Amino acid sequence: MQFTKADIEAMPSRYRAHFVNSLSGYKSANLVGTVDSEGHTNLAIVSSVVHLGAHPPLVAMVVRPDVVERHTLANIRANGWFTLNQVHRPFWQAAHQTSAKYEHTDSEFSAVGLSPEFIGECVAPFVKESALKYAVKLVREQVIEENGTILLIGSIEHGVVKEQALCSDGHIDLNALETVAVTGLDGYHLGNRLGRLSYAQPHQWPTPLDE
Amino acid sequence: MQFTKADIEAMPSRYRAHFVNSLSGYKSANLVGTVDSEGHTNLAIVSSVVHLGAHPPLVAMVVRPDVVERHTLANIRANGWFTLNQVHRPFWQAAHQTSAKYEHTDSEFSAVGLSPEFIGECVAPFVKESALKYAVKLVREQVIEENGTILLIGSIEHGVVKEQALCSDGHIDLNALETVAVTGLDGYHLGNRLGRLSYAQPHQWPTPLDE
Repeated sequence: MQFTKADIEAMPSRYRAHFVNSLSGYKSANLVGTVDSEGHTNLAIVSSVVHLGAHPPLVAMVVRPDVVERHTLANIRANGWFTLNQVHRPFWQAAHQTSAKYEHTDSEFSAVGLSPEFIGECVAPFVKESALKYAVKLVREQVIEENGTILLIGSIEHGVVKEQALCSDGHIDLNALETVAVTGLDGYHLGNRLGRLSYAQPHQWPTPLDE
Repeated sequence: MQFTKADIEAMPSRYRAHFVNSLSGYKSANLVGTVDSEGHTNLAIVSSVVHLGAHPPLVAMVVRPDVVERHTLANIRANGWFTLNQVHRPFWQAAHQTSAKYEHTDSEFSAVGLSPEFIGECVAPFVKESALKYAVKLVREQVIEENGTILLIGSIEHGVVKEQALCSDGHIDLNALETVAVTGLDGYHLGNRLGRLSYAQPHQWPTPLDE
């Protein structure tokens, strides 16, 4: 089936949201942990984290100020810190439930049954149940003028990784952690490993990498 | 295991690249199709496509001007068009092989055995073998000053989706398409469906959605 831009713009709002959110493919499932100046913790699931670079270690996250993420954004602006915590199989429904519009004073941690954990100098809470998580310090905000979303650029300050999942070359085995991926607005998946491939060279086919 | 920012910066370059690229979780596997002013087609795998919004339909892609993606960037700047084509199981190794540093005049299409296809007004080539693909028109570039990467903001102009994968509510079943996800620099995975969940409401647990 083919869809022109006019076809997409003519879709009912919710249908269009499902459709366009499915186009970008598998997305990472992360819980963003933040805290306000009174110590109220907040937890929100996001599928918009993107790798920016390894040296320096930088990550970016797209947030929509007009939705549930507004508390997350206000907290990050207040103290400059957030945590990113990968979602794993045992709590994927709880992670989804953080997207409900709770009152600012109701912590999503207690509402969905996850545990805040404080590590190092990061004032934002980690998710104790997550086996791959890191503290991020806000570097800069960039407004995407075309739709009012905000790109938060952050530096990776402190990482916590379950040792068994760390491969000898630095790669992390997300299958071993049962890390979850998102499709569209509400589809959740585990990874089913096809394999790793050698660094691609012209005129020779890549070979499988052992782990 | 815990890693401070100093620990991460002290990692050997390749180890650090594997490590930091694994932190962002599952990433979409997309082939970017472009063409230069002489008609040379180019195809490059990227894992940095992120959804920006559904209304208007916007997508963003992070590119590194200093690597293989430089041809992709030059072509997009030359004519303003690129295509994003989801990678599926039958050609995941071929998709990886597009990351080899081919000469500008050698098309990755023929080098890896994929077929260019031209649809509508988009001058950039689609991947015929892809069952979920769309044409993107460059809206704006934003430089990420912190590391010199470039965020390409594009509008989704024309979508092509295999009808059987389109759900009644607009969600697209990526498992049915055997769409591939990436971890780190070189890990490839299929999705193993956990399920879809209802729109989250405070104080009630989400329920599974039928498809």
